[in-house]
Amino acid sequence: MLLGLRGKLNPKNNVVSNNSNQGKDNGTAFNDVTMSATRNQHFNGKSRRKGNSDTDDELLDMMPLTNQTTSFYQDDSEDDPLLGDRSFQVRPTQTPKSASPSSHLIQSLDDSIAGMEDYGTYDDFHTIDWLREMSRNRLRHRQITHRKKESWHLKLRALHDAWSGWLVVLLVGLSAGTCAGIIDIVTKWLSDVKLGVCPEKFWLNKESCCWNSETVTPSGSNCTKWLAWSDVFGMSAQNAQGVYAVNYVMYIVVAVILATFAGLLVKVFAPYACGSGIPEVKTILSGFIIRGYLGKWTLLIKSLAAPLSVAANLSLGKEGPLVHIAACCGNIFSYLFPKYGKNEAKKREVLSAAAAAGVSVAFGAPVGGVLFSLEEVSYYFPMKTLWRSFFCALTAAFVLRSMNPYGNSHLVMFYVKYNKPWFLFELVPFALVGVLGGLYGAAFIHANLRWCKFRSTSKLGKYPILEVLVLTIITAAASYPNPFTKVDASAMIAELVQECTPVSKLTDPNLCDYEELPVNQTYSVSHGHQLAPVGEGLRTAIWQLAVALIFKAVITVFTFGVKLPTGLFIPSMGVGAIMGRLIGIGMEQLVYAYPDCVLWASSCSTNTIRESCVTPGLYAMVGAAAALGGVTRMTVSLVVIMFELTGGLQYIVPLMAAAMFSKWAGDAFGNEGIYDGHIRLNGYPFLDNKEEFTHTTLATDVMMPRRGDPPLKVVLQENMTVGDLEHLVKTTTYNGFPVITSQDSYRLLGYIYRRDLMVALENARHHSENVLSNSKAYFTLHAPTLSTSGVNEPAPVRLFNVVDLSPITVTDHTPMEIVVEIFTKLGIRQALVTHNGRLLGIITKKDVLRHIARLNKQDPDSIMFN
Amino acid sequence: MLLGLRGKLNPKNNVVSNNSNQGKDNGTAFNDVTMSATRNQHFNGKSRRKGNSDTDDELLDMMPLTNQTTSFYQDDSEDDPLLGDRSFQVRPTQTPKSASPSSHLIQSLDDSIAGMEDYGTYDDFHTIDWLREMSRNRLRHRQITHRKKESWHLKLRALHDAWSGWLVVLLVGLSAGTCAGIIDIVTKWLSDVKLGVCPEKFWLNKESCCWNSETVTPSGSNCTKWLAWSDVFGMSAQNAQGVYAVNYVMYIVVAVILATFAGLLVKVFAPYACGSGIPEVKTILSGFIIRGYLGKWTLLIKSLAAPLSVAANLSLGKEGPLVHIAACCGNIFSYLFPKYGKNEAKKREVLSAAAAAGVSVAFGAPVGGVLFSLEEVSYYFPMKTLWRSFFCALTAAFVLRSMNPYGNSHLVMFYVKYNKPWFLFELVPFALVGVLGGLYGAAFIHANLRWCKFRSTSKLGKYPILEVLVLTIITAAASYPNPFTKVDASAMIAELVQECTPVSKLTDPNLCDYEELPVNQTYSVSHGHQLAPVGEGLRTAIWQLAVALIFKAVITVFTFGVKLPTGLFIPSMGVGAIMGRLIGIGMEQLVYAYPDCVLWASSCSTNTIRESCVTPGLYAMVGAAAALGGVTRMTVSLVVIMFELTGGLQYIVPLMAAAMFSKWAGDAFGNEGIYDGHIRLNGYPFLDNKEEFTHTTLATDVMMPRRGDPPLKVVLQENMTVGDLEHLVKTTTYNGFPVITSQDSYRLLGYIYRRDLMVALENARHHSENVLSNSKAYFTLHAPTLSTSGVNEPAPVRLFNVVDLSPITVTDHTPMEIVVEIFTKLGIRQALVTHNGRLLGIITKKDVLRHIARLNKQDPDSIMFN
Repeated sequence: MLLGLRGKLNPKNNVVSNNSNQGKDNGTAFNDVTMSATRNQHFNGKSRRKGNSDTDDELLDMMPLTNQTTSFYQDDSEDDPLLGDRSFQVRPTQTPKSASPSSHLIQSLDDSIAGMEDYGTYDDFHTIDWLREMSRNRLRHRQITHRKKESWHLKLRALHDAWSGWLVVLLVGLSAGTCAGIIDIVTKWLSDVKLGVCPEKFWLNKESCCWNSETVTPSGSNCTKWLAWSDVFGMSAQNAQGVYAVNYVMYIVVAVILATFAGLLVKVFAPYACGSGIPEVKTILSGFIIRGYLGKWTLLIKSLAAPLSVAANLSLGKEGPLVHIAACCGNIFSYLFPKYGKNEAKKREVLSAAAAAGVSVAFGAPVGGVLFSLEEVSYYFPMKTLWRSFFCALTAAFVLRSMNPYGNSHLVMFYVKYNKPWFLFELVPFALVGVLGGLYGAAFIHANLRWCKFRSTSKLGKYPILEVLVLTIITAAASYPNPFTKVDASAMIAELVQECTPVSKLTDPNLCDYEELPVNQTYSVSHGHQLAPVGEGLRTAIWQLAVALIFKAVITVFTFGVKLPTGLFIPSMGVGAIMGRLIGIGMEQLVYAYPDCVLWASSCSTNTIRESCVTPGLYAMVGAAAALGGVTRMTVSLVVIMFELTGGLQYIVPLMAAAMFSKWAGDAFGNEGIYDGHIRLNGYPFLDNKEEFTHTTLATDVMMPRRGDPPLKVVLQENMTVGDLEHLVKTTTYNGFPVITSQDSYRLLGYIYRRDLMVALENARHHSENVLSNSKAYFTLHAPTLSTSGVNEPAPVRLFNVVDLSPITVTDHTPMEIVVEIFTKLGIRQALVTHNGRLLGIITKKDVLRHIARLNKQDPDSIMFN
Repeated sequence: MLLGLRGKLNPKNNVVSNNSNQGKDNGTAFNDVTMSATRNQHFNGKSRRKGNSDTDDELLDMMPLTNQTTSFYQDDSEDDPLLGDRSFQVRPTQTPKSASPSSHLIQSLDDSIAGMEDYGTYDDFHTIDWLREMSRNRLRHRQITHRKKESWHLKLRALHDAWSGWLVVLLVGLSAGTCAGIIDIVTKWLSDVKLGVCPEKFWLNKESCCWNSETVTPSGSNCTKWLAWSDVFGMSAQNAQGVYAVNYVMYIVVAVILATFAGLLVKVFAPYACGSGIPEVKTILSGFIIRGYLGKWTLLIKSLAAPLSVAANLSLGKEGPLVHIAACCGNIFSYLFPKYGKNEAKKREVLSAAAAAGVSVAFGAPVGGVLFSLEEVSYYFPMKTLWRSFFCALTAAFVLRSMNPYGNSHLVMFYVKYNKPWFLFELVPFALVGVLGGLYGAAFIHANLRWCKFRSTSKLGKYPILEVLVLTIITAAASYPNPFTKVDASAMIAELVQECTPVSKLTDPNLCDYEELPVNQTYSVSHGHQLAPVGEGLRTAIWQLAVALIFKAVITVFTFGVKLPTGLFIPSMGVGAIMGRLIGIGMEQLVYAYPDCVLWASSCSTNTIRESCVTPGLYAMVGAAAALGGVTRMTVSLVVIMFELTGGLQYIVPLMAAAMFSKWAGDAFGNEGIYDGHIRLNGYPFLDNKEEFTHTTLATDVMMPRRGDPPLKVVLQENMTVGDLEHLVKTTTYNGFPVITSQDSYRLLGYIYRRDLMVALENARHHSENVLSNSKAYFTLHAPTLSTSGVNEPAPVRLFNVVDLSPITVTDHTPMEIVVEIFTKLGIRQALVTHNGRLLGIITKKDVLRHIARLNKQDPDSIMFN
């Protein structure tokens, strides 16, 4: 509780198994065993070891560290004066003498820690130390580049290492694109199964089934190969009510089967496959470890369950889950390359790229995907990652386009054919749409978080499948009668963003049913939609849209968070598109009713034929952006995704206006987007790097030990025995201990990680029989007086090399805003607090998060953290 | 030399003038004058003061700091034990007693430092401390938000403060767009003046002059209102040679006049207006101060000289300078808002947005502009800035579009009308184009840097106008005979990226002159360009293009860096476009010659009429991207700019391939782009945050004092007199001094900035007559024994509050890679080096830069730095 570094260590890890297959070096009374175990320490202060030993690691371990400059103090005693000759340009290289045996020793030790093979040194639900991981990677890189001159084999390895970054993102892009393509095709098929079957080839969806290979066009409504369920059951077409009833029931039945199957899959095989996954991916990218969250089972089950859930016509999308699925691909492929698989910081670069690929395939928006990854998901995003993410996103989009799941040549989902100008006066309704979208977003976040909280605290959470079942029945029953909710939400959006042309009235009888005006002679089909009053069909459509709006807005609150892969992009956009279309139609009628209003008189009246200057489809597009912005609080990436999604580069200003007003309106009711809300709700230890810390507390207010707490557990430079240290390790669960010079002066020497200390002590015990519990442990470089009395005398143990000599320190007077900046920007796990050079305490990431939670009047103990 | 913080202080700043208009407080023997001077210190460790005092600052200064928690030690003596009750949740607020008089005192002191009014606390060619600036801003923000409940006036001020971020980017966007529009119009006019005049309305360019208001179309070649120079001089059209000669000479004469005028403007009025400005803007954004570089004179002169230089047909563009011009707008408007104008870190947020707006108007590419700012120019780019940059870029682009300088409805410069597919086999030539572009870029960077170095070291640098003159004559003389170089480079690129259609042969007789093949009956004009062998005209064009390629590639090396505003975007793209077009034509002929090659047989032979499957215009576009990528090493922003520039969203994969291969090929010959090269050449102190530090040195190798140097100049917590301190300030030029507990222990207490110390000592002297040179100075909180013997006894001075108690420290064993990361990510100016809690030395940004230069085998003393 004090240090806040409680290692909720796996019991397996605490037991360091015995091993006896190492050479003993009894010739020297002084035990230098830890030297090679952590010799990396000198170069990067890094000593955490990978659990498993494949060729790469072994090569690194066995390498004599020649050609690397090392810097040691000749004398490191308590009161050394300021040495004049501290700094050597070329220093004598102190190569460990017994490199091979003892590195082997550590290796075997690590091997014996079962279950650690695939996960590096971090335990589940722990947070990583970016600074150290990056240092480790740099050491790895230096060693590889340095050795590449030695043989062609090593040269090849260096080349492989240099290219593996590109290779891994290529593979991720290919696999993410393939996954997305398959999911798209399956979704299409399953969605149509609700309505009927293709008896000849049951695996075809309606479009493929009806595809007329002779005219190379879809056959349209007069397709005979596709049978609705009523036809399958041999219902006569005369019995209209019966046909309707059968189709209605089958719609619900198929939806329930699909949803239940999806729910069971998730519940039984991969509980992590539920939800959108973006909050978790975001948390993982910020440096948290959630084992299995990006594993192959999650990938498989999510890829299966996402199409099932979408096809069940629940108010959810597969776009969010695609980000999770792509991240799974990223995680899995990163294990092919030790550079990425064995370094948590480098792995997260791949995951950032994968997240970009996920959005890229979800919307066919590679640039938007990269910006989404940059703005919304990623934590550290170096420029190199930006470029690779782009490559990854583009590869994925390219693969998807080659699979052509949308059945057209456009890469985009909601391609808008029109190229009509918009007018300045329209910025007012666009802003209104934006504000409404923002308000909807704020209301949605609030309601959804409350519902999710209720679910997790009440009995409801115990019956996830039942919840899915009920939700599916309600959704399906309410959706079928309404033509806008009956179809897929993305199909609805695609319809809503289209403009009405004189032709579209035929294909889309309701939405474009304007009254026929006495047509001007010069009016021709090539002109756009004429400004006209609302017709009967449109009036019906408006009612249907209004009902759909309310239904979708409400049901999504209850849907997002059930035990299914639930994306939020498409439902939000759907709500927004309906709202936008309605406002667009209203605006159009306003212009029709008051043609001489000063706002639009000049823009709209130039045409004698009164071609409509308001495009309701554009309002739907803007509305979709506004609602999505309100829910997720995305900004630039939202605008870019929207224009990539629709191909409407010329509508960037309206989209931007809507996104801005949406964000402003939403932020007025709480700063956090839905993803941040779920991160907080789930208690993930996410230290937001975008939010500014605005309080005036100091480091001394946050650090442990607090007033009245027992003193800090520290390790003394000298004067501690092996037994003391072993007792310290056994009786505490901290991840590490500060090393101080003496109990009196409390001057900070460094920091020792629990694991390193354990391994080093274990080594020392096995290295020499003279190491006993009352052996003195020295954390100094200067050799203690060698024992000459006899073999049975307890031999001193030197543990200096296990100490991390470059811990990050802050003074007690450092304002917390600077401490938070150090934590977020450097990605460290703990900082030591000093006062006038004396150690006072320690601040861990958890302490910072708890402090922030306390300042924000939230429960500080809700944070899941180790 | 030791501390590396030598303040090359302005003489004006060293003289702290006397002032006597403050209240003296002789009632207390203890001098607490520095308390209020730097009371901010307690909350953010920040004590640098703004030079000028307008209402905002005064309000802040006068504010009693109630409601802010402060943390003081009860006892701060040398050997205080670990106090159990260090941390108070609510501590007694120690409000300074004499806030007003002594804050007035400091105010008057600062006022007297002349010449500092507009520039904050940093001197010219100094570097800023991001961490402190951001802290200062947060304090400002906290105070404003805290006081807003007090009155409606303060509430309004808080509102204004909250919105000023948006307001300033709006203003910057508007002004940048306007500047760009005017520059475009002037450039067009001046470019045509080389060829002739519009006698009726001399201020019109050829297009406007020939505009036929009746048919609302340009009159084309049979325009009679526009007179070529030969017509003006009354030459007869029969005398073809004479006409050519006159026009040739006039072309050169006008070019020389324009260029000389531009050169003189730059030389006389604003020397900073030369060059592209991007390296300097990049350096400024990284935290360097270059006074006047973004001033109004630079803005004015650069806006004038850029069109003049471009019109002189020199091989330069106005796109780079537009970034500089936009940054000037950003700088100027930021002074309207104290939040930005008075905080160097916040100001740089506006500058980042302005840079985005610059690229946005240069190419009509708002998204590309934001990415350019993010990828290439900016240093710290928080998400909030991303969103505002986008807004700024979009506003600017919108203003520019409203001014419509390109004379068409497209926002883009090189709009491509075609929408032809590209084929997979074409990725091979695209990659080739990319590699060639990268090689060109590497060669260009190498040659240009050598030439610029030669210029600055030889006599050539002394005659900038002469250089411009000679260069203009050569360029003009060589350009006129070649139709591709005779026109503006951007016009040439626009022509090269177009495809050949059966119609284009009429308008573009040479470039599209393919041999007429026996036309298939089904072939119609609506089809694309037919695959055909090269015709006579095209053969000529190929030669002209080849000559233009060589000429442009060579002359640009000599042009970039002369005393004119010299952009590099358009010349690089021009070279690339020529190269790409040539390769495209070659590819086309290859397909024609070997129609059955397996690579393209399937893609190209589907059409019986053999419509060309290779679009040379696309190759030109790809080539432009490749060459620009090779020169600047841009990646994502390049691709996005290119597709925004051409409107060719479907060509994102070819552009990406070219950009990737270009970067790889270029990086093989040196990692730095042209901007980084010029930063290095000019010795700007730019600590690259994109480059990884890969060496193995430790902090102890870099810190000052080095071996054999005199010891570090430090300030003792006690035991120093006012005279000692004054002597220290007078005899050294360091920017600050570490404060240690005692000469024996060398334990670090904090850091004191030179300026703060000077002000505090001056205050103390004026505050009480009892402060003499032998007065003791205390940097501790605990009060010294008060002198009771008499008034003439030297009174002790307490300077604790001037000390920055939260300096960033690193241990001597910290690897330099971590130190570099701390410097770049936190943006600090210096870090103190400790060993076991004792102060060892100091590392400044200059030390880091010198160290990196030394490791890279560059001259460490070339870095301009203070």
